[in-house]
Amino acid sequence: MKKLQVIKIGGKVIDDDEQLLQVLNAFAHIEGPKILVHGGGSKASEMEKALGLVPNMVEGRRITNKDSLDVVTMVYAGLINKTIIAGLQQIGCNAIGLSGADGNAVEAQKRPINTLDYGFVGDVKKVNDAFIDSLLGKGMTPVFSAITHNGDGQLLNTNADTMAAEIAIAISDKYQVELVLVFEKNGVLGTNGEVIEQIEEASFLKLKEDKTISDGMIPKLINAFNALKKGVVAVKLTSANYLIDNDSECTKVVL
Amino acid sequence: MKKLQVIKIGGKVIDDDEQLLQVLNAFAHIEGPKILVHGGGSKASEMEKALGLVPNMVEGRRITNKDSLDVVTMVYAGLINKTIIAGLQQIGCNAIGLSGADGNAVEAQKRPINTLDYGFVGDVKKVNDAFIDSLLGKGMTPVFSAITHNGDGQLLNTNADTMAAEIAIAISDKYQVELVLVFEKNGVLGTNGEVIEQIEEASFLKLKEDKTISDGMIPKLINAFNALKKGVVAVKLTSANYLIDNDSECTKVVL
Repeated sequence: MKKLQVIKIGGKVIDDDEQLLQVLNAFAHIEGPKILVHGGGSKASEMEKALGLVPNMVEGRRITNKDSLDVVTMVYAGLINKTIIAGLQQIGCNAIGLSGADGNAVEAQKRPINTLDYGFVGDVKKVNDAFIDSLLGKGMTPVFSAITHNGDGQLLNTNADTMAAEIAIAISDKYQVELVLVFEKNGVLGTNGEVIEQIEEASFLKLKEDKTISDGMIPKLINAFNALKKGVVAVKLTSANYLIDNDSECTKVVL
Repeated sequence: MKKLQVIKIGGKVIDDDEQLLQVLNAFAHIEGPKILVHGGGSKASEMEKALGLVPNMVEGRRITNKDSLDVVTMVYAGLINKTIIAGLQQIGCNAIGLSGADGNAVEAQKRPINTLDYGFVGDVKKVNDAFIDSLLGKGMTPVFSAITHNGDGQLLNTNADTMAAEIAIAISDKYQVELVLVFEKNGVLGTNGEVIEQIEEASFLKLKEDKTISDGMIPKLINAFNALKKGVVAVKLTSANYLIDNDSECTKVVL
Protein backbone atom coordinates (compact mmCIF):
# COMPACT_ATOMS: atom_id res chain seq x y z
CA MET A 1 0.00 0.00 0.00
CA LYS A 2 1.01 3.59 -0.68
CA LYS A 3 2.10 5.74 2.24
CA LEU A 4 0.02 8.74 3.29
CA GLN A 5 0.55 11.37 5.97
CA VAL A 6 -2.26 13.00 7.92
CA ILE A 7 -0.93 16.05 9.71
CA LYS A 8 -2.88 18.06 12.24
CA ILE A 9 -1.82 21.59 13.13
CA GLY A 10 -3.35 24.06 15.56
CA GLY A 11 -2.60 26.43 18.39
CA LYS A 12 0.40 28.72 18.05
CA VAL A 13 1.26 27.44 14.54
CA ILE A 14 -1.99 28.99 13.30
CA ASP A 15 -1.55 32.18 15.32
CA ASP A 16 1.99 32.89 14.12
CA ASP A 17 1.90 33.90 10.42
CA GLU A 18 5.61 33.31 9.92
CA GLN A 19 5.64 29.86 11.51
CA LEU A 20 2.50 28.94 9.57
CA LEU A 21 4.26 29.78 6.31
CA GLN A 22 7.26 27.63 7.32
CA VAL A 23 4.99 24.73 8.21
CA LEU A 24 3.01 25.04 4.97
CA ASN A 25 6.25 25.09 3.03
CA ALA A 26 7.46 21.94 4.80
CA PHE A 27 4.07 20.29 4.37
CA ALA A 28 3.94 21.10 0.65
CA HIS A 29 7.30 19.41 0.19
CA ILE A 30 6.24 16.09 1.75
CA GLU A 31 6.32 13.60 -1.09
CA GLY A 32 3.29 11.53 -1.90
CA PRO A 33 -0.33 11.88 -0.81
CA LYS A 34 -1.06 13.93 2.30
CA ILE A 35 -3.91 15.50 4.22
CA LEU A 36 -3.84 18.54 6.48
CA VAL A 37 -6.29 19.09 9.34
CA HIS A 38 -6.25 22.40 11.16
CA GLY A 39 -7.71 23.86 14.30
CA GLY A 40 -8.17 27.56 14.88
CA GLY A 41 -5.58 28.61 17.42
CA SER A 42 -6.75 31.57 19.44
CA LYS A 43 -8.28 33.41 16.46
CA ALA A 44 -11.84 32.23 17.14
CA SER A 45 -11.71 33.46 20.75
CA GLU A 46 -10.20 36.75 19.60
CA MET A 47 -13.00 37.15 17.07
CA GLU A 48 -15.62 36.35 19.70
CA LYS A 49 -14.16 39.01 21.98
CA ALA A 50 -14.02 41.55 19.13
CA LEU A 51 -17.73 40.90 18.54
CA GLY A 52 -18.53 41.39 22.21
CA LEU A 53 -19.14 37.68 22.83
CA VAL A 54 -17.64 35.79 25.74
CA PRO A 55 -15.74 32.60 24.85
CA ASN A 56 -16.94 29.80 27.09
CA MET A 57 -14.22 27.18 27.50
CA VAL A 58 -14.55 24.16 29.81
CA GLU A 59 -11.46 21.97 30.18
CA GLY A 60 -9.99 23.44 27.01
CA ARG A 61 -13.12 22.74 24.99
CA ARG A 62 -15.39 25.39 23.58
CA ILE A 63 -19.02 25.41 24.62
CA THR A 64 -20.49 26.27 21.24
CA ASN A 65 -23.76 28.21 21.20
CA LYS A 66 -25.25 29.55 17.94
CA ASP A 67 -23.19 32.78 17.91
CA SER A 68 -20.06 30.85 18.77
CA LEU A 69 -20.75 28.33 15.98
CA ASP A 70 -21.07 31.18 13.47
CA VAL A 71 -17.72 32.53 14.64
CA VAL A 72 -15.83 29.22 14.42
CA THR A 73 -17.41 28.52 11.02
CA MET A 74 -16.25 31.92 9.76
CA VAL A 75 -12.80 31.75 11.28
CA TYR A 76 -11.90 28.06 10.76
CA ALA A 77 -13.68 27.23 7.47
CA GLY A 78 -13.34 30.74 6.04
CA LEU A 79 -10.38 32.84 7.08
CA ILE A 80 -7.88 30.20 8.24
CA ASN A 81 -8.78 27.51 5.71
CA LYS A 82 -8.65 29.83 2.68
CA THR A 83 -5.46 31.52 3.88
CA ILE A 84 -3.84 28.07 4.10
CA ILE A 85 -5.17 27.06 0.68
CA ALA A 86 -3.87 30.23 -1.00
CA GLY A 87 -0.50 29.69 0.73
CA LEU A 88 -0.23 26.07 -0.42
CA GLN A 89 -1.32 26.90 -3.99
CA GLN A 90 1.43 29.53 -4.08
CA ILE A 91 4.06 26.86 -3.43
CA GLY A 92 2.67 24.45 -5.99
CA CYS A 93 0.61 22.22 -3.71
CA ASN A 94 -2.82 21.70 -5.28
CA ALA A 95 -4.78 22.05 -2.07
CA ILE A 96 -8.54 21.97 -1.66
CA GLY A 97 -10.19 23.28 1.50
CA LEU A 98 -12.98 21.24 2.99
CA SER A 99 -15.30 21.22 5.93
CA GLY A 100 -17.02 17.98 6.84
CA ALA A 101 -20.13 19.22 5.02
CA ASP A 102 -18.35 19.57 1.65
CA GLY A 103 -18.92 16.42 -0.36
CA ASN A 104 -20.34 15.00 2.87
CA ALA A 105 -16.70 14.35 3.77
CA VAL A 106 -17.17 14.01 7.54
CA GLU A 107 -20.55 13.46 9.12
CA ALA A 108 -20.93 13.97 12.86
CA GLN A 109 -23.61 13.86 15.50
CA LYS A 110 -24.28 16.51 18.11
CA ARG A 111 -22.62 15.43 21.32
CA PRO A 112 -25.28 14.05 23.68
CA ILE A 113 -25.89 16.07 26.82
CA ASN A 114 -24.64 14.20 29.84
CA THR A 115 -23.40 16.32 32.69
CA LEU A 116 -22.44 19.14 30.32
CA ASP A 117 -24.14 20.58 27.21
CA TYR A 118 -21.37 21.39 24.75
CA GLY A 119 -23.86 23.00 22.37
CA PHE A 120 -23.18 22.66 18.64
CA VAL A 121 -20.26 20.28 19.08
CA GLY A 122 -20.07 17.20 16.89
CA ASP A 123 -18.55 13.78 17.39
CA VAL A 124 -17.44 12.16 14.14
CA LYS A 125 -19.81 9.46 12.90
CA LYS A 126 -18.70 8.69 9.34
CA VAL A 127 -15.85 9.69 7.07
CA ASN A 128 -16.45 9.60 3.30
CA ASP A 129 -13.10 7.99 2.51
CA ALA A 130 -14.09 7.27 -1.12
CA PHE A 131 -14.52 11.00 -1.77
CA ILE A 132 -11.28 11.91 0.00
CA ASP A 133 -9.45 9.18 -1.90
CA SER A 134 -10.84 10.43 -5.22
CA LEU A 135 -9.29 13.84 -4.55
CA LEU A 136 -5.97 12.25 -3.55
CA GLY A 137 -6.12 10.18 -6.74
CA LYS A 138 -6.15 13.41 -8.73
CA GLY A 139 -3.02 14.60 -6.94
CA MET A 140 -4.96 17.03 -4.80
CA THR A 141 -4.28 17.73 -1.13
CA PRO A 142 -7.37 17.95 1.10
CA VAL A 143 -7.12 20.55 3.88
CA PHE A 144 -9.81 20.15 6.52
CA SER A 145 -11.10 22.72 8.96
CA ALA A 146 -12.61 21.01 11.98
CA ILE A 147 -16.20 21.94 11.12
CA THR A 148 -18.55 19.05 10.37
CA HIS A 149 -22.29 18.65 9.75
CA ASN A 150 -24.95 16.22 10.90
CA GLY A 151 -26.50 15.58 7.47
CA ASP A 152 -29.61 17.36 8.67
CA GLY A 153 -28.48 20.89 7.87
CA GLN A 154 -26.65 21.57 11.12
CA LEU A 155 -22.98 22.55 11.14
CA LEU A 156 -21.02 21.33 14.17
CA ASN A 157 -17.76 22.35 15.81
CA THR A 158 -15.46 19.33 16.09
CA ASN A 159 -12.21 18.61 17.90
CA ALA A 160 -9.43 18.85 15.31
CA ASP A 161 -7.30 16.04 16.86
CA THR A 162 -10.27 13.68 16.74
CA MET A 163 -11.14 14.74 13.21
CA ALA A 164 -7.57 14.06 12.07
CA ALA A 165 -7.56 10.66 13.83
CA GLU A 166 -10.92 9.65 12.33
CA ILE A 167 -9.86 10.67 8.82
CA ALA A 168 -6.58 8.76 9.29
CA ILE A 169 -8.49 5.65 10.43
CA ALA A 170 -11.01 5.83 7.57
CA ILE A 171 -8.36 6.14 4.87
CA SER A 172 -6.15 3.39 6.37
CA ASP A 173 -7.97 0.75 4.28
CA LYS A 174 -6.33 2.24 1.23
CA TYR A 175 -3.03 3.63 2.50
CA GLN A 176 -0.30 3.03 5.07
CA VAL A 177 -1.22 6.04 7.17
CA GLU A 178 1.04 7.99 9.50
CA LEU A 179 -0.76 10.47 11.76
CA VAL A 180 1.23 13.43 13.06
CA LEU A 181 -0.38 15.56 15.77
CA VAL A 182 1.48 18.86 15.97
CA PHE A 183 1.20 20.85 19.18
CA GLU A 184 3.19 23.31 21.30
CA LYS A 185 5.78 20.89 22.74
CA ASN A 186 8.32 18.67 21.00
CA GLY A 187 6.54 15.58 22.28
CA VAL A 188 5.11 14.05 25.41
CA LEU A 189 7.27 15.29 28.26
CA GLY A 190 8.64 13.09 31.07
CA THR A 191 9.20 14.00 34.72
CA ASN A 192 12.33 16.02 33.94
CA GLY A 193 10.85 17.82 30.96
CA GLU A 194 12.57 15.49 28.50
CA VAL A 195 10.74 14.28 25.39
CA ILE A 196 9.65 10.65 25.82
CA GLU A 197 10.80 8.95 22.62
CA GLN A 198 8.25 6.20 22.62
CA ILE A 199 5.11 5.60 24.59
CA GLU A 200 3.06 2.40 24.88
CA GLU A 201 -0.39 2.04 26.39
CA ALA A 202 0.99 0.49 29.59
CA SER A 203 3.46 3.31 30.18
CA PHE A 204 0.76 5.87 29.28
CA LEU A 205 -1.49 4.52 32.03
CA LYS A 206 1.37 4.66 34.52
CA LEU A 207 2.35 8.23 33.51
CA LYS A 208 -1.29 9.26 33.75
CA GLU A 209 -1.53 7.76 37.22
CA ASP A 210 1.51 9.60 38.53
CA LYS A 211 0.24 12.81 36.82
CA THR A 212 3.27 13.17 34.55
CA ILE A 213 0.67 13.23 31.77
CA SER A 214 -2.39 15.36 32.43
CA ASP A 215 -4.97 17.73 30.92
CA GLY A 216 -4.97 18.08 27.14
CA MET A 217 -2.34 15.36 26.65
CA ILE A 218 -4.76 12.67 27.83
CA PRO A 219 -7.38 12.96 25.02
CA LYS A 220 -4.50 13.41 22.52
CA LEU A 221 -3.00 10.08 23.57
CA ILE A 222 -6.38 8.35 23.70
CA ASN A 223 -6.92 9.53 20.10
CA ALA A 224 -3.48 8.22 19.19
CA PHE A 225 -4.02 4.72 20.65
CA ASN A 226 -7.49 4.57 19.11
CA ALA A 227 -6.03 5.37 15.67
CA LEU A 228 -3.34 2.68 16.03
CA LYS A 229 -5.91 0.07 17.08
CA LYS A 230 -8.08 0.89 14.08
CA GLY A 231 -5.46 0.58 11.34
CA VAL A 232 -3.22 3.65 11.41
CA VAL A 233 0.40 2.46 11.09
CA ALA A 234 2.20 5.17 13.07
CA VAL A 235 1.28 8.11 15.29
CA LYS A 236 3.66 10.87 16.29
CA LEU A 237 3.14 13.72 18.74
CA THR A 238 5.48 16.60 18.09
CA SER A 239 5.92 20.32 17.48
CA ALA A 240 6.02 22.31 14.24
CA ASN A 241 9.83 22.05 14.39
CA TYR A 242 9.52 18.39 13.48
CA LEU A 243 7.95 19.31 10.15
CA ILE A 244 10.37 22.13 9.46
CA ASP A 245 13.53 20.34 10.60
CA ASN A 246 13.64 16.55 10.28
CA ASP A 247 16.20 16.25 13.08
CA SER A 248 13.78 17.54 15.67
CA GLU A 249 12.40 15.35 18.45
CA CYS A 250 9.03 13.63 18.62
CA THR A 251 7.15 11.06 20.66
CA LYS A 252 6.21 7.87 18.82
CA VAL A 253 3.02 6.30 20.09
CA VAL A 254 3.00 2.52 19.76
CA LEU A 255 0.63 -0.25 20.82
CA MET B 1 -23.89 18.46 -25.33
CA LYS B 2 -25.40 18.09 -21.89
CA LYS B 3 -27.23 21.06 -20.38
CA LEU B 4 -25.84 22.81 -17.31
CA GLN B 5 -27.17 25.69 -15.23
CA VAL B 6 -24.99 28.26 -13.53
CA ILE B 7 -27.05 30.18 -10.99
CA LYS B 8 -25.87 33.23 -9.13
CA ILE B 9 -27.61 34.37 -5.97
CA GLY B 10 -26.87 37.29 -3.70
CA GLY B 11 -28.38 40.24 -1.90
CA LYS B 12 -31.66 39.71 -0.07
CA VAL B 13 -31.78 35.98 -0.90
CA ILE B 14 -28.71 35.48 1.27
CA ASP B 15 -29.95 37.81 4.02
CA ASP B 16 -33.34 36.12 4.39
CA ASP B 17 -32.89 32.66 5.95
CA GLU B 18 -36.33 31.47 4.91
CA GLN B 19 -36.01 32.60 1.29
CA LEU B 20 -32.52 31.10 1.14
CA LEU B 21 -33.90 27.71 2.18
CA GLN B 22 -36.62 27.94 -0.48
CA VAL B 23 -34.04 28.83 -3.13
CA LEU B 24 -31.70 26.02 -2.06
CA ASN B 25 -34.59 23.59 -2.19
CA ALA B 26 -35.52 24.72 -5.71
CA PHE B 27 -31.86 24.66 -6.77
CA ALA B 28 -31.34 21.13 -5.38
CA HIS B 29 -34.26 19.90 -7.48
CA ILE B 30 -32.90 21.20 -10.78
CA GLU B 31 -32.17 18.08 -12.80
CA GLY B 32 -28.73 17.53 -14.26
CA PRO B 33 -25.43 19.26 -13.56
CA LYS B 34 -25.52 22.68 -11.94
CA ILE B 35 -23.27 25.22 -10.27
CA LEU B 36 -24.17 27.82 -7.65
CA VAL B 37 -22.28 31.09 -7.20
CA HIS B 38 -23.12 33.28 -4.24
CA GLY B 39 -22.38 36.77 -3.06
CA GLY B 40 -22.66 37.87 0.52
CA GLY B 41 -25.72 40.06 0.80
CA SER B 42 -25.37 42.60 3.57
CA LYS B 43 -23.75 40.19 6.04
CA ALA B 44 -20.18 41.28 5.30
CA SER B 45 -21.02 44.94 5.92
CA GLU B 46 -22.89 44.00 9.11
CA MET B 47 -19.85 42.05 10.29
CA GLU B 48 -17.54 44.96 9.46
CA LYS B 49 -19.72 47.28 11.51
CA ALA B 50 -19.88 44.78 14.41
CA LEU B 51 -16.07 44.74 14.38
CA GLY B 52 -15.89 48.52 14.41
CA LEU B 53 -14.78 48.75 10.79
CA VAL B 54 -16.36 51.12 8.30
CA PRO B 55 -17.55 49.51 5.05
CA ASN B 56 -16.23 51.55 2.13
CA MET B 57 -18.52 51.18 -0.86
CA VAL B 58 -18.01 53.12 -4.11
CA GLU B 59 -20.74 52.70 -6.76
CA GLY B 60 -21.95 49.53 -5.05
CA ARG B 61 -18.49 47.99 -4.99
CA ARG B 62 -16.53 47.30 -1.86
CA ILE B 63 -13.13 48.92 -1.48
CA THR B 64 -11.34 45.97 0.09
CA ASN B 65 -8.46 46.74 2.45
CA LYS B 66 -6.74 43.97 4.47
CA ASP B 67 -9.29 44.01 7.33
CA SER B 68 -12.14 44.08 4.88
CA LEU B 69 -10.68 41.14 2.93
CA ASP B 70 -10.47 39.11 6.14
CA VAL B 71 -14.13 39.86 6.81
CA VAL B 72 -15.38 38.92 3.33
CA THR B 73 -13.24 35.75 3.39
CA MET B 74 -14.76 34.77 6.74
CA VAL B 75 -18.31 35.65 5.85
CA TYR B 76 -18.49 34.52 2.19
CA ALA B 77 -16.15 31.50 2.12
CA GLY B 78 -16.86 30.49 5.72
CA LEU B 79 -20.24 31.28 7.20
CA ILE B 80 -22.42 31.68 4.09
CA ASN B 81 -20.72 29.00 1.97
CA LYS B 82 -20.80 26.32 4.66
CA THR B 83 -24.37 27.18 5.68
CA ILE B 84 -25.41 26.70 2.03
CA ILE B 85 -23.46 23.42 1.77
CA ALA B 86 -25.01 21.96 4.92
CA GLY B 87 -28.44 23.05 3.66
CA LEU B 88 -27.95 21.41 0.24
CA GLN B 89 -26.51 18.22 1.74
CA GLN B 90 -29.60 18.00 3.94
CA ILE B 91 -31.83 17.85 0.86
CA GLY B 92 -29.71 15.28 -0.93
CA CYS B 93 -27.64 17.57 -3.15
CA ASN B 94 -23.99 16.53 -2.93
CA ALA B 95 -22.59 20.06 -2.78
CA ILE B 96 -18.97 21.07 -2.38
CA GLY B 97 -18.04 24.59 -1.35
CA LEU B 98 -15.19 26.25 -3.16
CA SER B 99 -13.35 29.51 -3.27
CA GLY B 100 -11.27 30.26 -6.34
CA ALA B 101 -8.18 29.16 -4.41
CA ASP B 102 -9.48 25.61 -3.82
CA GLY B 103 -8.12 23.35 -6.52
CA ASN B 104 -6.96 26.57 -8.19
CA ALA B 105 -10.54 26.77 -9.49
CA VAL B 106 -10.55 30.49 -10.32
CA GLU B 107 -7.40 32.52 -10.61
CA ALA B 108 -7.66 36.30 -10.61
CA GLN B 109 -5.42 39.33 -10.73
CA LYS B 110 -5.57 42.32 -8.45
CA ARG B 111 -7.49 45.04 -10.22
CA PRO B 112 -5.02 47.60 -11.54
CA ILE B 113 -5.19 51.05 -9.96
CA ASN B 114 -6.54 53.58 -12.44
CA THR B 115 -8.52 56.41 -10.94
CA LEU B 116 -9.56 54.29 -7.97
CA ASP B 117 -7.69 51.72 -5.84
CA TYR B 118 -10.17 48.94 -5.09
CA GLY B 119 -7.66 47.24 -2.80
CA PHE B 120 -7.73 43.44 -2.69
CA VAL B 121 -10.25 43.08 -5.48
CA GLY B 122 -9.62 40.51 -8.18
CA ASP B 123 -10.60 40.32 -11.84
CA VAL B 124 -10.93 36.75 -13.08
CA LYS B 125 -7.99 35.60 -15.21
CA LYS B 126 -8.43 31.84 -15.60
CA VAL B 127 -11.05 29.26 -14.67
CA ASN B 128 -9.92 25.66 -14.09
CA ASP B 129 -12.80 24.12 -16.03
CA ALA B 130 -11.20 20.65 -16.04
CA PHE B 131 -11.29 20.56 -12.24
CA ILE B 132 -14.87 21.87 -12.08
CA ASP B 133 -15.92 19.35 -14.73
CA SER B 134 -14.29 16.49 -12.80
CA LEU B 135 -16.48 17.34 -9.78
CA LEU B 136 -19.59 17.55 -11.96
CA GLY B 137 -18.64 14.20 -13.49
CA LYS B 138 -18.85 12.66 -10.03
CA GLY B 139 -22.38 14.04 -9.59
CA MET B 140 -21.17 16.78 -7.26
CA THR B 141 -22.50 20.34 -7.23
CA PRO B 142 -19.85 23.06 -6.90
CA VAL B 143 -20.91 26.06 -4.83
CA PHE B 144 -18.62 29.05 -5.22
CA SER B 145 -18.13 31.96 -2.89
CA ALA B 146 -16.81 34.96 -4.80
CA ILE B 147 -13.35 34.84 -3.24
CA THR B 148 -10.46 34.12 -5.61
CA HIS B 149 -6.67 34.08 -5.37
CA ASN B 150 -3.83 35.34 -7.54
CA GLY B 151 -1.73 32.15 -7.42
CA ASP B 152 0.82 34.07 -5.42
CA GLY B 153 -0.73 33.53 -2.00
CA GLN B 154 -3.09 36.50 -2.10
CA LEU B 155 -6.84 36.04 -1.67
CA LEU B 156 -8.98 38.52 -3.61
CA ASN B 157 -12.56 39.72 -3.32
CA THR B 158 -14.34 39.24 -6.64
CA ASN B 159 -17.66 40.38 -8.09
CA ALA B 160 -20.03 37.41 -7.88
CA ASP B 161 -21.86 38.23 -11.17
CA THR B 162 -18.55 38.31 -13.01
CA MET B 163 -17.37 35.12 -11.32
CA ALA B 164 -20.60 33.34 -12.34
CA ALA B 165 -20.28 34.61 -15.93
CA GLU B 166 -16.61 33.59 -16.20
CA ILE B 167 -17.33 30.10 -14.83
CA ALA B 168 -20.27 29.77 -17.25
CA ILE B 169 -18.06 30.82 -20.17
CA ALA B 170 -15.22 28.45 -19.22
CA ILE B 171 -17.48 25.42 -18.88
CA SER B 172 -19.38 26.17 -22.11
CA ASP B 173 -16.85 24.11 -24.11
CA LYS B 174 -18.26 21.01 -22.45
CA TYR B 175 -21.91 21.89 -21.73
CA GLN B 176 -24.85 23.87 -23.12
CA VAL B 177 -24.74 26.47 -20.37
CA GLU B 178 -27.60 28.62 -19.14
CA LEU B 179 -26.59 31.44 -16.80
CA VAL B 180 -29.21 32.77 -14.39
CA LEU B 181 -28.39 35.94 -12.49
CA VAL B 182 -30.78 36.25 -9.56
CA PHE B 183 -31.29 39.70 -8.05
CA GLU B 184 -33.97 41.74 -6.27
CA LYS B 185 -36.28 42.42 -9.23
CA ASN B 186 -38.15 40.01 -11.48
CA GLY B 187 -36.07 41.16 -14.44
CA VAL B 188 -34.88 44.28 -16.23
CA LEU B 189 -37.62 46.85 -15.76
CA GLY B 190 -38.96 49.11 -18.53
CA THR B 191 -40.22 52.70 -18.25
CA ASN B 192 -43.50 51.67 -16.61
CA GLY B 193 -41.91 49.22 -14.20
CA GLU B 194 -42.85 46.24 -16.37
CA VAL B 195 -40.41 43.34 -16.81
CA ILE B 196 -38.81 43.49 -20.25
CA GLU B 197 -39.19 39.94 -21.60
CA GLN B 198 -36.25 40.02 -23.94
CA ILE B 199 -33.37 42.39 -24.36
CA GLU B 200 -30.89 42.62 -27.25
CA GLU B 201 -27.69 44.62 -27.33
CA ALA B 202 -29.23 47.34 -29.52
CA SER B 203 -32.19 47.84 -27.20
CA PHE B 204 -29.84 47.74 -24.18
CA LEU B 205 -27.84 50.64 -25.60
CA LYS B 206 -31.02 52.61 -26.24
CA LEU B 207 -32.41 51.93 -22.75
CA LYS B 208 -29.08 52.90 -21.26
CA GLU B 209 -29.09 56.14 -23.22
CA ASP B 210 -32.57 57.14 -22.06
CA LYS B 211 -31.59 56.09 -18.47
CA THR B 212 -34.29 53.39 -18.21
CA ILE B 213 -31.34 51.14 -17.36
CA SER B 214 -28.80 52.55 -14.93
CA ASP B 215 -26.47 51.82 -12.01
CA GLY B 216 -25.98 48.14 -11.10
CA MET B 217 -28.02 46.88 -14.05
CA ILE B 218 -25.39 48.10 -16.51
CA PRO B 219 -22.49 45.83 -15.40
CA LYS B 220 -25.00 42.96 -15.01
CA LEU B 221 -26.07 43.32 -18.65
CA ILE B 222 -22.50 43.79 -19.86
CA ASN B 223 -21.63 40.50 -18.09
CA ALA B 224 -24.64 38.87 -19.73
CA PHE B 225 -23.74 39.95 -23.29
CA ASN B 226 -20.11 39.00 -22.71
CA ALA B 227 -21.18 35.50 -21.62
CA LEU B 228 -23.39 35.05 -24.69
CA LYS B 229 -20.61 36.19 -27.03
CA LYS B 230 -18.20 33.70 -25.46
CA GLY B 231 -20.30 30.55 -25.73
CA VAL B 232 -23.00 30.63 -23.06
CA VAL B 233 -26.29 29.58 -24.70
CA ALA B 234 -28.78 31.55 -22.62
CA VAL B 235 -28.68 34.27 -19.95
CA LYS B 236 -31.61 35.19 -17.74
CA LEU B 237 -31.96 38.03 -15.24
CA THR B 238 -34.60 37.37 -12.66
CA SER B 239 -35.59 37.18 -9.00
CA ALA B 240 -35.53 34.25 -6.58
CA ASN B 241 -39.23 33.73 -7.39
CA TYR B 242 -38.21 32.43 -10.79
CA LEU B 243 -36.33 29.55 -9.16
CA ILE B 244 -39.06 28.82 -6.64
CA ASP B 245 -42.02 29.20 -9.03
CA ASN B 246 -41.46 28.40 -12.70
CA ASP B 247 -44.31 30.69 -13.78
CA SER B 248 -42.49 33.77 -12.58
CA GLU B 249 -41.21 36.42 -14.94
CA CYS B 250 -37.65 36.93 -16.18
CA THR B 251 -35.68 38.90 -18.72
CA LYS B 252 -33.97 36.85 -21.43
CA VAL B 253 -30.79 38.45 -22.67
CA VAL B 254 -30.10 37.63 -26.33
CA LEU B 255 -27.49 38.71 -28.84
